[in-house]
Amino acid sequence: MTRPLILHPDRLFPADKVSREIARNLYESVKDLPIISPHGHTDPSWFADNKPFGNPANLLIRPDHYVFRMLYSQGIALERLGIRTKDGTEVEQDPRKIWQLLADNYHLFRGTPSRTWLDTVFHDVFGLDVQLSSETAELYYERIDSELKKPEFLPRALFERFNIEVIATTESPLDDLRHHQTILDSGWKGRVITAFRPDPVLDPDFEGFVDNLAQLAEITGEDTSTWAGYLAALRNRREFFKQMGATSTDHGHPTATTANLSAAEAEALFLKVSRGNCSAADAELFRGQMLTEMARMSIEDGLVMQIHPGSFRNHNKVVFERFGRDKGCDIPSQTDYVHALQPLLEAVGNEPDLTIILFTLDETSYSRELAPLAGHYPALKLGPSWWFHDSPEGMRRFREQVTETAGFYNTVGFNDDTRAFLSIPARHDVARRMDCVWLAQLVSDHRLQEDEALELAADLAYNLAKKAYKL
Amino acid sequence: MTRPLILHPDRLFPADKVSREIARNLYESVKDLPIISPHGHTDPSWFADNKPFGNPANLLIRPDHYVFRMLYSQGIALERLGIRTKDGTEVEQDPRKIWQLLADNYHLFRGTPSRTWLDTVFHDVFGLDVQLSSETAELYYERIDSELKKPEFLPRALFERFNIEVIATTESPLDDLRHHQTILDSGWKGRVITAFRPDPVLDPDFEGFVDNLAQLAEITGEDTSTWAGYLAALRNRREFFKQMGATSTDHGHPTATTANLSAAEAEALFLKVSRGNCSAADAELFRGQMLTEMARMSIEDGLVMQIHPGSFRNHNKVVFERFGRDKGCDIPSQTDYVHALQPLLEAVGNEPDLTIILFTLDETSYSRELAPLAGHYPALKLGPSWWFHDSPEGMRRFREQVTETAGFYNTVGFNDDTRAFLSIPARHDVARRMDCVWLAQLVSDHRLQEDEALELAADLAYNLAKKAYKL
Amino acid sequence: MTRPLILHPDRLFPADKVSREIARNLYESVKDLPIISPHGHTDPSWFADNKPFGNPANLLIRPDHYVFRMLYSQGIALERLGIRTKDGTEVEQDPRKIWQLLADNYHLFRGTPSRTWLDTVFHDVFGLDVQLSSETAELYYERIDSELKKPEFLPRALFERFNIEVIATTESPLDDLRHHQTILDSGWKGRVITAFRPDPVLDPDFEGFVDNLAQLAEITGEDTSTWAGYLAALRNRREFFKQMGATSTDHGHPTATTANLSAAEAEALFLKVSRGNCSAADAELFRGQMLTEMARMSIEDGLVMQIHPGSFRNHNKVVFERFGRDKGCDIPSQTDYVHALQPLLEAVGNEPDLTIILFTLDETSYSRELAPLAGHYPALKLGPSWWFHDSPEGMRRFREQVTETAGFYNTVGFNDDTRAFLSIPARHDVARRMDCVWLAQLVSDHRLQEDEALELAADLAYNLAKKAYKL
Repeated sequence: MTRPLILHPDRLFPADKVSREIARNLYESVKDLPIISPHGHTDPSWFADNKPFGNPANLLIRPDHYVFRMLYSQGIALERLGIRTKDGTEVEQDPRKIWQLLADNYHLFRGTPSRTWLDTVFHDVFGLDVQLSSETAELYYERIDSELKKPEFLPRALFERFNIEVIATTESPLDDLRHHQTILDSGWKGRVITAFRPDPVLDPDFEGFVDNLAQLAEITGEDTSTWAGYLAALRNRREFFKQMGATSTDHGHPTATTANLSAAEAEALFLKVSRGNCSAADAELFRGQMLTEMARMSIEDGLVMQIHPGSFRNHNKVVFERFGRDKGCDIPSQTDYVHALQPLLEAVGNEPDLTIILFTLDETSYSRELAPLAGHYPALKLGPSWWFHDSPEGMRRFREQVTETAGFYNTVGFNDDTRAFLSIPARHDVARRMDCVWLAQLVSDHRLQEDEALELAADLAYNLAKKAYKL
Repeated sequence: MTRPLILHPDRLFPADKVSREIARNLYESVKDLPIISPHGHTDPSWFADNKPFGNPANLLIRPDHYVFRMLYSQGIALERLGIRTKDGTEVEQDPRKIWQLLADNYHLFRGTPSRTWLDTVFHDVFGLDVQLSSETAELYYERIDSELKKPEFLPRALFERFNIEVIATTESPLDDLRHHQTILDSGWKGRVITAFRPDPVLDPDFEGFVDNLAQLAEITGEDTSTWAGYLAALRNRREFFKQMGATSTDHGHPTATTANLSAAEAEALFLKVSRGNCSAADAELFRGQMLTEMARMSIEDGLVMQIHPGSFRNHNKVVFERFGRDKGCDIPSQTDYVHALQPLLEAVGNEPDLTIILFTLDETSYSRELAPLAGHYPALKLGPSWWFHDSPEGMRRFREQVTETAGFYNTVGFNDDTRAFLSIPARHDVARRMDCVWLAQLVSDHRLQEDEALELAADLAYNLAKKAYKL
Repeated sequence: MTRPLILHPDRLFPADKVSREIARNLYESVKDLPIISPHGHTDPSWFADNKPFGNPANLLIRPDHYVFRMLYSQGIALERLGIRTKDGTEVEQDPRKIWQLLADNYHLFRGTPSRTWLDTVFHDVFGLDVQLSSETAELYYERIDSELKKPEFLPRALFERFNIEVIATTESPLDDLRHHQTILDSGWKGRVITAFRPDPVLDPDFEGFVDNLAQLAEITGEDTSTWAGYLAALRNRREFFKQMGATSTDHGHPTATTANLSAAEAEALFLKVSRGNCSAADAELFRGQMLTEMARMSIEDGLVMQIHPGSFRNHNKVVFERFGRDKGCDIPSQTDYVHALQPLLEAVGNEPDLTIILFTLDETSYSRELAPLAGHYPALKLGPSWWFHDSPEGMRRFREQVTETAGFYNTVGFNDDTRAFLSIPARHDVARRMDCVWLAQLVSDHRLQEDEALELAADLAYNLAKKAYKL
């Protein structure tokens, strides 16, 4: 059967008339604000080269592990979805066949944010008005494929159409940022900045860590075989990233462990890990120490620091060996912040000019740890609900569990954290709606006055991100 | 005072008119579907012998630890409730006195699912229309006692009246399934199947484990003093259970620990534990290894596997020593799935033809661990909210925290997990209502269209359980 | 801009008309019940001396770490808020400047319970009808300052105006309770009782523990260098506290660890810790053993026992070293109850005449551990949502997660746990409203009949606290 595709104007708003009306008014006031996207994973070459995006499967399925992990969970082999293998074993090449698989199984996404994001892209970007299904798969393919060839669907045109004020990508210190340079040189007005993600040269467990240090030495002219030289090299790259527009750093560690070793201890530890055969405990301690070092450099150079721990990466070893990283196999696990962050906070947590933004995959920490910490330490702010929790219910739980202890002003608005460029407006739209739903509840409960909620709606949709990330 | 006993047709539905109307429509479409009860603890002898159930206290109080744990928590001695002691010390024998105690304290159950289940049984099964209280205790006793003597209250008659399509009981591999054989031989059409629960011969800490192995040898003719013989004996009993109708196995371990040892390591470990004096760590490792072995056998024979870890059994040693197991003293504790299941998942998690159904007593794992795992691994599905969470609020949290990441189709519908036979329709009714409430919210939020919700309502109430359990 | 300050009569009630109407009716029936405040930290000297409270900053900012931790989290130095330093370094002395800082930053409290409590105090106690802001700061200061000088704002007058039936303060066993004696001697009818908080003489990590034992010996005439003498001294002080009106003890340990050592082991451990240089593990074990000893004494003398574990005290060492304890730096952390309480429960958990009230800062324990434990053990009851969770959303989660397993009658009503005397009516009002909201949901869901809810509303607002604390 073919269902109409309807994006109801009141979607996500409460059923009750009184609070729905309040939510509507709040949303009306923020829905057209420009998008601030301070943390994400779009590819800067899109905006540098401004070439057409590929076919529907390449654009919307292959790079989106939220989409293919769900299909995989129901027994659809990744090979049939065209996911490239590490050893080059052949996989499905026909994008129409891949697209049909998504269409045939679209019911699996009922109740998920992926469904909301995709429907919004289908409707708002490609003008489709029937639901994706086996029957409409071909119609969809044709429409999307042909639209993508038009100039108004080129990356820069979409960037402008999406009303993006600024977007941050994420790069390794070993990246030469050539695409960002191309954008800067091009005269195009779109603001695409980088963020400094040093895991490859901070994490002894990162693939190629020792080689990465050598490469870091080469790029910076610093001697990364010494602790002082290593720190100087990092300062050097931070400065370069900052010159290229970066306002933030980004740290994805397995845990929230931090350390505050003496200089001599830190140096000895560095010498051990930099030779490439340290213990797991050494690696963990080194990562922890480097968070504190990064925080100290942030006090110097003003870069905002983002920490998002707690993912068990590549949990499915079978998939990892065959297909590599980022295949939907990163699974959250329990994360302690209170003890883990204490060394870093003792060192720098009372600095009012430092901003450290914390993310979590473990929602139990919202009310127990993160809100109490961010509601006290001047250096701490809370990032939005993240990954699997970047969803209506996830956002509801975030506000319900965080606001009473940390307030609104220790949070930093929304970021989309995505490489799915087309879904960015949809993601911000969901966040704006859900924040308005929460504010509407506070107003209808008489905990907040409506004009305060209007101020807050704009803060949550726009101002807080801009301020926290210094954009 | 005597209050009327009213089962309001809109019970559990949202107060808001719009979503209440949607919930009503959805519920209307599923309320009369047959009951699939794939996991429970009813006694097969009831259906084999088809004799009248006992008196009200024996039927509704003594076997229901949800009921007597609440009374006990308020200082009512278990002896006064007629709970049998291990040493035969005398306890209350008069079922009328026991019944009066429940009646006098019925206010304790306000806001609990036990209250809902009991009221539904009182009203729908026994036709009572006043609330249970001190004043109405006698009326209740007389009515229930006299009804139970009628032919239409015999187990098979109730089974049919309850519209049960299939019910699974749970038996040890050492059970000869004679009651199931009697049912099969009887010509009665009711489908009562068994499930294979091998804890007594898999868990070195189970009472009588070594003797159980000897008994297993005797039953199967295999040499359970060797690893190969032990595995063969298990295969043998699985096959027997399957022939008798079983479609699933059931594993109640203290933690979710799994292991994937080499054959030699597994054999050595078996030799150690089978002698009966292994360490706690050995026992834990062996249980973990056996989950993986059971999963491998499930790939061979197609039995669906159920894992429900995380209970601290017999927490109250004083009660355990006096009254024995299953006296309401099993308390949930924190449970890790992400690290614990990794060895098993590495071995078999990518098998699309294997079904492992996970349960939890630790709700923090819903959004953090279980939904992300089930939303990725082909072999994993999520069982419904369970035990203390088999309740309206527990079901609400389950759907709110699981759906966005795992969708609906990585869940398996409802099971009642009960030995309280009369409450089975009430339990399924609560589940159907709460699933319709969740679907109604998605519809009224415009996240789902109403005809999709109608499909889902039937899937959650009937189709998913049937499919997942191969019934 | 100046906003009106409105305390809407329907605040915190649901938006839906049906359930709002039910909530209103329930609330109407309990809003004027006297306040039972069985656990708090008001200063008994206020009621003994009955002198005017200080200026607005001294009354409402300096002692309230919920207020100044939020300001501090946004970079406002504690010195500017007049928080006294340990070394006497000068801090802001001008209460008008301090007050202006709160006023200028009052938007930070949007959505927090502090905002609700403060607004209620401003409106109901001081008759203010515009919102606090930069513009109204002076108006506020003048009004509050002048009101505080009037006789009807003296502590005893406010106590009576607030309709407090009984309030408990908290004192160390080393306290001579002179203020309580003064109150008793004064002829004033207000009931201000003490609670026995023995941490200073039970916790080897408490500052001055060894000296405290010496002081305990001196006060009681017992030889606290022996285990028997130490226990006798504790019994002695409990008896004294009881004579002075105490009905409860209060235990704030870092974890819920309990122990049940043999007498010989306990004695040996005491001898070690009482010399002042035990290990961290010894200290933890001793605290755990002493909880069991206290429970045993409670069986003897009838004092109700309160346990509230799980706070990482003085997390911010920089603030602790400069400003000392209780500066908003106590952060909750993960807390296990199931294993930790088992030794104590094995010893005394089945005593129906013992009451142990458990609190938690880790909400994950509500449905997983605390409700199952309290729904079984006769000695256990659950305290209300606490500290950061003493808030509308915190209360909602408490009832939603606790009721179905523990019911209402294993909870003990509300306590305010505050030293902010003026906010006590506001805090009880929030609790009464939120309990009525929860009851209204059960009624509108048809899980409960309205007259049952009326009974429960009075129980939760008044009767349960009175009964559980034997007041």
